[in-house]
Amino acid sequence: MNNFKLTIEYDGTEFKGWQRLGKGENTIQGKIETVLAKMTDEAIEIVGASRTDAGVHALAQVASFKTGAAVTAGEVKTYLNTYLPKSISIADAVAASDRFHARYHAKNKTYLYRVWNQPHGNPFLRKYSMHVPQALDLAAIRTASRHFLGEHDFAVYANAKSNKKDTVRKIDLLDVSAEAGMVLFRISGNGFLYNMVRKIVGTLLEVGQGEKKAEDIPVILASSERQLTGGMAEACGLFLEKVEY
Amino acid sequence: MNNFKLTIEYDGTEFKGWQRLGKGENTIQGKIETVLAKMTDEAIEIVGASRTDAGVHALAQVASFKTGAAVTAGEVKTYLNTYLPKSISIADAVAASDRFHARYHAKNKTYLYRVWNQPHGNPFLRKYSMHVPQALDLAAIRTASRHFLGEHDFAVYANAKSNKKDTVRKIDLLDVSAEAGMVLFRISGNGFLYNMVRKIVGTLLEVGQGEKKAEDIPVILASSERQLTGGMAEACGLFLEKVEY
Repeated sequence: MNNFKLTIEYDGTEFKGWQRLGKGENTIQGKIETVLAKMTDEAIEIVGASRTDAGVHALAQVASFKTGAAVTAGEVKTYLNTYLPKSISIADAVAASDRFHARYHAKNKTYLYRVWNQPHGNPFLRKYSMHVPQALDLAAIRTASRHFLGEHDFAVYANAKSNKKDTVRKIDLLDVSAEAGMVLFRISGNGFLYNMVRKIVGTLLEVGQGEKKAEDIPVILASSERQLTGGMAEACGLFLEKVEY
Repeated sequence: MNNFKLTIEYDGTEFKGWQRLGKGENTIQGKIETVLAKMTDEAIEIVGASRTDAGVHALAQVASFKTGAAVTAGEVKTYLNTYLPKSISIADAVAASDRFHARYHAKNKTYLYRVWNQPHGNPFLRKYSMHVPQALDLAAIRTASRHFLGEHDFAVYANAKSNKKDTVRKIDLLDVSAEAGMVLFRISGNGFLYNMVRKIVGTLLEVGQGEKKAEDIPVILASSERQLTGGMAEACGLFLEKVEY
């Protein structure tokens, strides 16, 4: 068996997320598996490091798959880039060791969240950022963001429908910067619960608008009242930026 | 009568170009006129500096319109930005003198043409650039581009169906630069024939791939054989960048 590691860039706008759903559902995993099945004449299952949601983008998603077909990594890359829609691009394909698993072996993931923070919307960024017309207090956001760093039980940031028992995660980096009308949140950690990044950004945007204070964050994290976290930031502003092994 | 000058940014991807066509046709002019008609209770006709084609974008299109309604420029801007689709944004609205006409009074227009010049397509730039995977000889393109500068009869670059008699235009600037995987053409002049910018870029891309030489340009310009100009660059790479008065 060959085991391959793919690095994938995609515009998530028109997809129902990464994860394969039923037949005919438009997902990134589904699109890639369909093309690989044609190439190898096998039913292929690919595993993505992150199950990005509908509308979420990736600059460098990592996925792995096994096949008995005698194909090289270069052939896989070329075939996929030839037959995939233009909204998905394979940046890299390499042969991996038999034991490599893109999800289980991921040690760290980095997400980028983009906010277009100008009075009027930007037609070219409307699908690649969340529009927040109100002024944001970046100093307040930065102070608040420090409370998320380190290891915490993020149960209050978990999805209500999720029955995940282990909700402890470690965040190594939560950087907030501003450039050319945009506010960028970069967040890195050993793992994230479903919707956790968008909910943390949602909390921080409320801090930036004076609706919450930095000292509310420890209270929210210690609480089990999910509505305390505030609104969830839109899917279109979120990019999976990097996966480390 | 009030006369207003609008500066408009739009993502042209989903429009059939600037110019109003029949009823129900999706054009930028049509969208703006419909919203202004609701605001003023009048039939409004707006005049754009450039009649950009289907799929062509604008960073700063300029348009003017007259109305008898007692509205301020600020109200026009806010109303349009509230009711226009997010693919169109009014960057500025100002009161203009009675005689101002966005098309007739334009002295200079600048277009930007973007080429994504990497082996694989970029999912995020596929609607905002033309993908040319082959390596481009920028030095050869720059040498060739100088032949377009100054005043020329661009009849060979006119549309075959056009019956425009005056095909003399003056190009002041044709700058070619490269940054972050992209090749940028910036072209500025007192006016451009229909599709002229895309055809000039098409010629230069053939020079960049060794299919034409710099010294072919004067021969093409002196000729009346339209097929000599080569292919036309795609609409999605073209941006109206600036209109000067």
